Amino acid sequence: MAKLLRVNMTDLKATYEEVPEVYRYWGGRGLTSMITSREVPPTCHPLGPSNKLVIAPGIVSGTAAPTSGRTSFGGKSPLTGTIKETNAGGLSSQKIARLGIKAIVIEGQPKDPTKYWVLKITKDGTEFLPADDLVGKGMYEVCQRLWEKHGKVAVIGIGPAGEMRMTAAGICVNDQENTAGRYAGRGGMGAVMGSKGIKAIVIDDTGGPGVEIVNKELFERGIKKLTDASLKHDVTKKGGALNTYGTNVLANIMNEAGGYPTRNFSSGRFELTHKISGEAKVEIIKQRNGEGATGHPCHPGCIIQCSDRWPNPDGTFKVSVMEYESVWALGANCGIGDLDDIADLIWLCNDIGLDTIEMGGTLAVAMEGGLLSFGDAKEAKRLLDEEIRKGTPLGRILGNGAVFTGRAFGVTRVPAVKGQNMPAYEPRAVKGIGVTYATSTMGADHTAGYTIAPEILGVGGKADPFAVQKAELSRNFQASTAFIDSTGYCLFDAFAVLDIPEGLEGMVESCAGVLGTNWTVNDILPLGLQILKAERQFNEAAGFTKAHDRLPEFMTREPLPPHNTVFDVPEEVLDEVYNF
Amino acid sequence: MAKLLRVNMTDLKATYEEVPEVYRYWGGRGLTSMITSREVPPTCHPLGPSNKLVIAPGIVSGTAAPTSGRTSFGGKSPLTGTIKETNAGGLSSQKIARLGIKAIVIEGQPKDPTKYWVLKITKDGTEFLPADDLVGKGMYEVCQRLWEKHGKVAVIGIGPAGEMRMTAAGICVNDQENTAGRYAGRGGMGAVMGSKGIKAIVIDDTGGPGVEIVNKELFERGIKKLTDASLKHDVTKKGGALNTYGTNVLANIMNEAGGYPTRNFSSGRFELTHKISGEAKVEIIKQRNGEGATGHPCHPGCIIQCSDRWPNPDGTFKVSVMEYESVWALGANCGIGDLDDIADLIWLCNDIGLDTIEMGGTLAVAMEGGLLSFGDAKEAKRLLDEEIRKGTPLGRILGNGAVFTGRAFGVTRVPAVKGQNMPAYEPRAVKGIGVTYATSTMGADHTAGYTIAPEILGVGGKADPFAVQKAELSRNFQASTAFIDSTGYCLFDAFAVLDIPEGLEGMVESCAGVLGTNWTVNDILPLGLQILKAERQFNEAAGFTKAHDRLPEFMTREPLPPHNTVFDVPEEVLDEVYNF
Repeated sequence: MAKLLRVNMTDLKATYEEVPEVYRYWGGRGLTSMITSREVPPTCHPLGPSNKLVIAPGIVSGTAAPTSGRTSFGGKSPLTGTIKETNAGGLSSQKIARLGIKAIVIEGQPKDPTKYWVLKITKDGTEFLPADDLVGKGMYEVCQRLWEKHGKVAVIGIGPAGEMRMTAAGICVNDQENTAGRYAGRGGMGAVMGSKGIKAIVIDDTGGPGVEIVNKELFERGIKKLTDASLKHDVTKKGGALNTYGTNVLANIMNEAGGYPTRNFSSGRFELTHKISGEAKVEIIKQRNGEGATGHPCHPGCIIQCSDRWPNPDGTFKVSVMEYESVWALGANCGIGDLDDIADLIWLCNDIGLDTIEMGGTLAVAMEGGLLSFGDAKEAKRLLDEEIRKGTPLGRILGNGAVFTGRAFGVTRVPAVKGQNMPAYEPRAVKGIGVTYATSTMGADHTAGYTIAPEILGVGGKADPFAVQKAELSRNFQASTAFIDSTGYCLFDAFAVLDIPEGLEGMVESCAGVLGTNWTVNDILPLGLQILKAERQFNEAAGFTKAHDRLPEFMTREPLPPHNTVFDVPEEVLDEVYNF
Repeated sequence: MAKLLRVNMTDLKATYEEVPEVYRYWGGRGLTSMITSREVPPTCHPLGPSNKLVIAPGIVSGTAAPTSGRTSFGGKSPLTGTIKETNAGGLSSQKIARLGIKAIVIEGQPKDPTKYWVLKITKDGTEFLPADDLVGKGMYEVCQRLWEKHGKVAVIGIGPAGEMRMTAAGICVNDQENTAGRYAGRGGMGAVMGSKGIKAIVIDDTGGPGVEIVNKELFERGIKKLTDASLKHDVTKKGGALNTYGTNVLANIMNEAGGYPTRNFSSGRFELTHKISGEAKVEIIKQRNGEGATGHPCHPGCIIQCSDRWPNPDGTFKVSVMEYESVWALGANCGIGDLDDIADLIWLCNDIGLDTIEMGGTLAVAMEGGLLSFGDAKEAKRLLDEEIRKGTPLGRILGNGAVFTGRAFGVTRVPAVKGQNMPAYEPRAVKGIGVTYATSTMGADHTAGYTIAPEILGVGGKADPFAVQKAELSRNFQASTAFIDSTGYCLFDAFAVLDIPEGLEGMVESCAGVLGTNWTVNDILPLGLQILKAERQFNEAAGFTKAHDRLPEFMTREPLPPHNTVFDVPEEVLDEVYNF
């Protein structure tokens, strides 16, 4: 039976323990949130010894289930002060699971805050290897060196940003090509990893026991149903929207809807969208080398394959992945309309170890504050490479995110909730996503309850984006997302299962097969609500109230072009979301 | 009858209005808190147009009442996010009151955030004078220029720190010598004034109607009783502790008690206290010029006269005032043991417009983070004069206070509550003041409920500093302080009235005389509790809960030398304070 691996960084001890019953049926976010909410004192300092970094593959990760390679990273966030789960693709999820590890729980803190370790996990146990040669290095070099030394391991690591405890620091996971492009970016969890004195974790699953599947027949039936749905749905199928254009297929769609936040959320439409859209990306890649324009998986066993590999003008490889959120954050939101500039900025974020969303938001706030001009890609790159990477005072401001930067420069127009910058959907043009931003247990987060599906894409039903009665819609998306985030399945599976009932059945049956439960689709919402409730309770004990479930003041006063609407969802609607 | 002066900075209009009944019987803090709690949306951005800056003299300010020249400044704090009142001596209180103005309520915000005004208030009304020539200037020059232009007016102003919206910025009031040394320092209210586009307010009370006193006989009887008590008590009398040594008489006392926070609250005793104590200060002043060593008043009509005027080694005037808190913050807490260095640092804070307590705490956190060494006065001065004053990125970090600086540099040992750095009393050695820090509506603030009186000084009874059952003690001090802060009387009157019942009667009777109420000493606590309740409700609506009524984690874990005690007041005791 899978074990919990507890790693104590105060005295460098690793112990395997039986999974307590209370954690037994959870995986991914469900597990990181249950462990955090039970074991972390809610008022503790997120970068102190009482916080924990919990790393958990999903319920079906490491099995033959398709598109199930998400790893969840949880704990108390130094960016938001809330509980946090942020997940990534890449190699780690399957390898951790196949070693028979249900979660890695990193506790305590080394006495010397400048000392870093590489944690090596194999079937034989855990080693603490000095990381002196990796300190200060960017994630590209870290991944390369660790493969040279340890073979084709999974790498989980932090760049200089996490070492400097910057609260915009993410946690990086390598992929099959060993590039440093898969990020559990949000909430500053890279700073938590830094505070634990861990530069990287390498996982070698050679000879591991694999994932125990209690009910193999149910599991097999489940993954077949899910695979069929995924390969049938227009969004997720081979040659479908995601597979062909990547997530950045959304750029034109959101721009058309007037909900594509531009120049620090001062407009919902960007005049250069045609130059940075998914369609433009594919065309340029095809012109340059034709490789990785489309159909690139972020982890083995993905059948959606929405990733890509962006080339330099000479055709050599530059960066993976040109995700919708990253391209928007460092593009439209900064007034930057050139994919090569954006690729450079994404590469820098990946190398330094920064969340692309938070950094795009931060640069935009700095632009609004007059530190640089909107559209000035050259200076944006310099700020990342010379200020943040080197930890200059200016770098320390920017590396701590948009709210922090706003306070430093006296900017009051900061589009954030609970300290976290908003992602690529304008709540004044799409009200449901604003309800999710406001009420999510994680701060402003589109993945927490992606109402864009019915509001813009017509997936999972249809909802008028300007209608304000979105409490139930957001709650249902938040709950079902909490469940999906626990399975190890990619959230993009949701597109298929929202429209194809058999797909949803398959998702639940595959999980039930692994765990030996009798879950049906009727259990999804109750299980999701149970996770949300635990997260919400943590937040309440940490000092969060309804007053924090609000969008920033300026969005309720300042009309957004082109629709010239404000965020007018009544506070009672926001307060209704967690009334369950 | 006195009026409210409403100043709208959006369209530069000033209007006088009748005082609504609900504000009629309040003054000072009572009035600023009632106006803020009724008129400011609790979740608004403190530097946005919805916040207000409320300026109110006390109930008896402007009358013949002794030591009654405090001006309260209130609104929502950009440092703490809570409601805030911070008060200062100097010339403003009496002049505002004598113009028949009960409070100045500054609302709205200019469109152009770089445009500043001087607000001139006389018996004839209010003028908005362009302040272009004063922008960027330090408060010493501002005071001088304004006297040259407007005569011996009261000046309320901000330095460059407030213009830059730094959340450690205070509001300065000039004194009889027109020095810029009286500060409503705490909570970043200087940034609020900056956000309103006001560089300075000048008040000329020539020909003003004076303060209406409804029951003159009661008033006269009251001030006589209070004066007698004040002149009799050992702490407040002529030749008493405060009059002879100033507030810094506390340095040796607190050091002896092991509660004098040293080097960022890592010890309760400073080995160089004898070089920076009140006694040392008086001796050095006497050697240098003998003037202002003792008995200097911060406003006309003060009979305690605890201020001083510190000279340079050549006997010329340097700075006023060498307050206990300021000398501690920029001295012991930074490991600096030289009064000339400390005087330079206080002068810089006064000129740039910074709270000395927050800046001492900030420098200490920066020292802990390795930016400079403990004791490095030269670099501390450079940071103030060249970084903060000029608004460099490093200056913008430091100018935003200790918590902000801690986050920038990854320092987790930050002694603050609700974002505000602790003042000069160690809660691990004096538990009652820790209860006040934790639960005050203002963040860590010694003046909010000065339990040091019974715990250390034996004034107002005696309490064991190490005993943890301090809920009632702190509550009573917080409530009576809220009342005193409303009267216009200096809090130091409390020393006398705590021990001499007639003094307390006199304080209440003088207020009742002005207002025409039938208040007795039995009304003090209920009135104070009413203020606290309004403040607490504002904070709750702004998102504060019991989880914020806590000291930082490290103080509950890290024993403090020399007593090697932690802060062990149970959370239930903290939660009991506001259970009324």
